[in-house]
Parts: sequence; C-alpha cells; structure tokens
Amino acid sequence: MNIYKDYMDVIKEAVNSDSSNFINEGLGRSAVHRSKEQFSNIYLRASQKDIAPSLMNFSSKIGTAINYEQQLGLHPDFGHLKNSNSTEEHYIASAFIDIKGSTNLFKKFDKETIFLITNAIQRAGIHTALIFGGYIHRLQGDGIFVYFGGKNISKDKAVLQALQAVSVYTHFVKNDLKEYFNSQGIENISIRSGIDLGYSNDVLWGNAGIGEISEVTTCSLHTSLASKMQSNAETNGIVVGDYIKNELNSEGDFFKPVCHRTENENDRYIYRIDDRNFRYTQYDFNWSQFLKKQPFIATDQFGNSIPKTDNILNPLSVASLKPIAEVSKPYYTYD
Amino acid sequence: MNIYKDYMDVIKEAVNSDSSNFINEGLGRSAVHRSKEQFSNIYLRASQKDIAPSLMNFSSKIGTAINYEQQLGLHPDFGHLKNSNSTEEHYIASAFIDIKGSTNLFKKFDKETIFLITNAIQRAGIHTALIFGGYIHRLQGDGIFVYFGGKNISKDKAVLQALQAVSVYTHFVKNDLKEYFNSQGIENISIRSGIDLGYSNDVLWGNAGIGEISEVTTCSLHTSLASKMQSNAETNGIVVGDYIKNELNSEGDFFKPVCHRTENENDRYIYRIDDRNFRYTQYDFNWSQFLKKQPFIATDQFGNSIPKTDNILNPLSVASLKPIAEVSKPYYTYD
Repeated sequence: MNIYKDYMDVIKEAVNSDSSNFINEGLGRSAVHRSKEQFSNIYLRASQKDIAPSLMNFSSKIGTAINYEQQLGLHPDFGHLKNSNSTEEHYIASAFIDIKGSTNLFKKFDKETIFLITNAIQRAGIHTALIFGGYIHRLQGDGIFVYFGGKNISKDKAVLQALQAVSVYTHFVKNDLKEYFNSQGIENISIRSGIDLGYSNDVLWGNAGIGEISEVTTCSLHTSLASKMQSNAETNGIVVGDYIKNELNSEGDFFKPVCHRTENENDRYIYRIDDRNFRYTQYDFNWSQFLKKQPFIATDQFGNSIPKTDNILNPLSVASLKPIAEVSKPYYTYD
Repeated sequence: MNIYKDYMDVIKEAVNSDSSNFINEGLGRSAVHRSKEQFSNIYLRASQKDIAPSLMNFSSKIGTAINYEQQLGLHPDFGHLKNSNSTEEHYIASAFIDIKGSTNLFKKFDKETIFLITNAIQRAGIHTALIFGGYIHRLQGDGIFVYFGGKNISKDKAVLQALQAVSVYTHFVKNDLKEYFNSQGIENISIRSGIDLGYSNDVLWGNAGIGEISEVTTCSLHTSLASKMQSNAETNGIVVGDYIKNELNSEGDFFKPVCHRTENENDRYIYRIDDRNFRYTQYDFNWSQFLKKQPFIATDQFGNSIPKTDNILNPLSVASLKPIAEVSKPYYTYD
C-alpha cells in the first residue's frame, strides 16, 4: 500500500546501511558501516510523532481526529482512576497485534538495523491505530495492545474502527513488509491479531500496580480472550469474538468459526462456563474481503485493495522531490 | 511461604466477599455482596506501594535497597534516552514471568474479585522483584517483564538476583497460591518464566514508539529469547539461556537442556545461526534445588524451603493483633 511508503523507506535505508553489506568487502564486520549521523538520521524518521506524509491523505479520508497526546497505560477517558482506589465499568474493544518471526532478523542484520526496523514497523502500527481512533495501551516488543472505544464513541463504531485499523495494518505487513523482507532473504515475517469486545458489565477499569509502576487497565474476560485469540490466529490472520461479530453492522459475512479452519470442534468456543450455559465463539475474520467493502478502499484491475487518495499524483511525490532537488539543482532554485 | 501471608490475606478476603457466595442464598447474583467500602478497603491493601509487613523482615535479610520510585518503561539508568535520538549499549538480564490459567477465575468469581486477586498477585510479584533489585519494565496482565542489572551492578550479581527473585516468586505461586486456589475449586493456576542475559555488544537501549506512546527499551536477541523461553517453560518452570548459566557462580548443577525434558533434540537450541556457527542452548532451571542453597532460605524437617526470618515470632503477629485488639477490646487499652 503506497500509504506506507515512507515507513518502508526507513526500513529499506536501515537495511541498506546494515553492516552485513560490508562484510564481503573484506573490511571486517564493524568496519565501514553506517555512521552515527546516518543512524540518528534514520532513527529520527523512524520515531517522528506525526504520521508520515504518505499516510496523511489517507488519514484525512478516514476523518477521525488524531490524538497524539496519548500516554501508554493511561486511556484518557479513565485517567482519573490513576492511583485512585475507585474503579469504573465501561465497554471496550481490546486488540492484540503481534508481528511474528522478527527474531529471524537477528540472523541477518546487526542490532542497530533491527532497532530501526522495529521502530518503523511499530510506528506504522501506532499511526494506523491512531488514524482509526485507537488508544495505544501497551507496546510489547513488536506487538501493540490497542483499545478501541471510550466515552464519546459508540460501541459499534469502536468495533468497526478496530476491525478497520487491524485489517489495514495486516494488509501492510502481509504485503508490503513481507514482500520486501522476502526480497532480502528474510522469510516468515507475519502478523497475528486478536480482537474482542467486552460490554460494560463485563469490564472493570482500574489502576493496576503500585506507585508509578502502574497502569490504568481493564479487568475483563474479553481483554484476556482477545490476547488468547491472537495466539489462535493463523499466519496473517485475525481472530475475533462473538460480541465483535454482533456489533458489526455490515453487509457480507466475514466470520467463520475457527473450528472450520482447524477441523477441531474444540476450537469453536474459546471459553465456556458450562454450569452457566455460557459458550463464547471465536471467529476467523476475513479482513481481506472486509477491506474491499470499506469506503476508503478501492480495488485495482487485479482485484487488489488500494487505499483511495484524493490526488492521482501520489501526495508524496512533491515532498520526495525536495531532497533530490536540493542535491541535483534542477531548473528552479529557491533564490 | 509465610512472607506472602499479607498478600494471601487480601486474596482470601476478596474471594470470601465474592458475589458467588451469596447466590445460593436466593438473593440473586448482585444482591447482598461486598459493599463499596469493603471493596475499596481490600483494593487499598492490594495496591499499597510499600512491601507488606509479612515481607519486610525477609526483605531486610536480602539487603538490597528497594527503589519504589520506578516508573514503567523507563529504567532509571537509561532514562536519558527517553525521546532522544541516541542509543546505548549495556548488558541486561530480561525476565518474563507469567501467571497461567487465571482466565479460569472468571468461571467462578465476579470481575471485582478477580481485579482484587490480580492486583494482589501482581503486587507480590512487583515487590519480590524490587527486593532483589529488579526493575519492572512492563506489566502484562497477570505477567510482568522485569530487567535485572544496570550501571551500578555487576552482571553476575544481576543474574544471581534475577534467579533468586523468580525462584522465590515461583515458589509462592506453585505453593501458597495454588494450594489456596485448589481449596476453592480453581485448578490449573501456575507460573512460567523465561530469563536470559544479553552482553553489552548484544543489547541496544533506546526509545521505542512516538511521543509519550513510548518506552525506553532494549533491542536484543536475548530479550526476545527470554520471552520465547517463557513459552517453552513447563508448568511452574523457569527456562534460562546459556549466558545465564555462564554467569551463575554457584555450587551445584541447576541446569538441564530443555531437550532432556521434551525428549526432542530440536529443543536443545532456542536459536541458531548456522552460517555463523552460533547455537544457543536453553535450560530448565532447577529453581527448587537452587533456592535451598540460598543464604536466605532454610529447610524445615520435611525438606521444604522456608524463608529465614530473624524473630521466631512472625513479625506480622503484632501488626495483625491491632485490628482484632480494636474490635475485641482486650485487657489493655490505649487510654
């Protein structure tokens, strides 16, 4: 997806300046290699707060205001619970997103390169979540744990945006990122996610931990299940709970019980309390079909999903001309 | 272990006031139940910053100053990297500790009870890590991710303390906590941990994320492996990496390659880079034998580990008399 071009550029630059490129020149592993300045330069771009230019136009199509002022472990709607001794019931959708196989990067690249790559991937994930109104609760290595929902948003909209965000990001990892890594001889980079919704009477918000070793978090069966669903997802798959399915108002059926894939009836319910007759189904979510129905996605002549942008000209192209222009002094000058 | 008595008391009080106790009285699920005040009261004790009285005497035996002023995602020795664009190499031991099976609690208890239980268990884990000089990097539901090591502590001491902390906590969960839950009809609560050490040239410290959606963290193969080792651990087991084994100066052999347990030679190495001839072994750590060799542990007549305390009188007993004294007005008064 062209919207992630800037993020991919950072990754490519990190890889191209990795020390492994210099080994074969007989200079030794840590000889000619990226300079400190070059590292800082790439790092700066990998950690910029604002969304990258290539994502901007897409973001404005989604139309949700981005809240950059978030803080990990402190959902703004529940910040008053920090180090208090009260709690609050409120619905929430919990999404666990994890990049798998990234430990393989250590087979090929030095740790500085991997640090830059990880940061760029994580930033793409954070920005994708922010665009769709998500709140980043926790960074977990290559993974992120994002809440969708809050006091000024309806349950069904939160669910819709959770599915949109995770689907767009899954598309990115499964396509852009994977293709590039494959071209570099890195196999098996993939993504797996789990999303579930807890209704108010099933979700307790409160402060966990002590002092500043604490976070405002949810105690909920459905937050726990979202995490379990992630580990049940197939490669590049998204598993969601029954309540997510309930709240999605959309044509088309994007949900298949996980047991259809695994051919094991035990996988139908992710949780059951027999004496209360509670059985909770987990579904494989067909994010790729779902994406094609979204207003911000068009399909090209091969049926591939492409994000809609207003200008036919890639919004990046002007910005990306600048550094070239500065170096090669084309026919116009700034003087 | 008597040192965790206060933590267990909170858990017991939470369970005893759970709504399920009132269902059979025909009053309905949310009828007569713990009051708001009672909840706040237990919660306050489950989230107190300082270590509980029952742990205090033990803590003073360890002799490491407790740093309560920690903050998640911001190791004090690397705080200067927060939102900077520089990085730093420094060794670290990473420990991932996870309580398994706690989702089962939802089958029996209401979410307020589970919230209190989780907080008490987590607090016990945090305090145990703090006593042994650990730095709590991340809370992950029932789990914690703790770094051991820093600028003013040697690698071997950091490794020793990591093993001590995780062993003591494992003993607590495997015995005190499990026994109590079993008595309540909750099975399968257990703990699994992974610990690995990365030497300086393998560990890059830096800021990950954007703005305040960020943490100071390590990019290291060995942090990633510690997390994988956790998932390879057996029930109530600890898996550690080769470098941990290297740095432990102790009589006795506490390490067995994981493949001996699984009888699968593929499990010997948790990571290999064949073209660099790098093979990294993972070991089951015999924490129970290890504990018995620690200066702060004695064994009772049955060979069980018991923490040494200075006074034969449990230090708790005086403190625990107070509320009783206040209610039952014994022979002495404060007037």
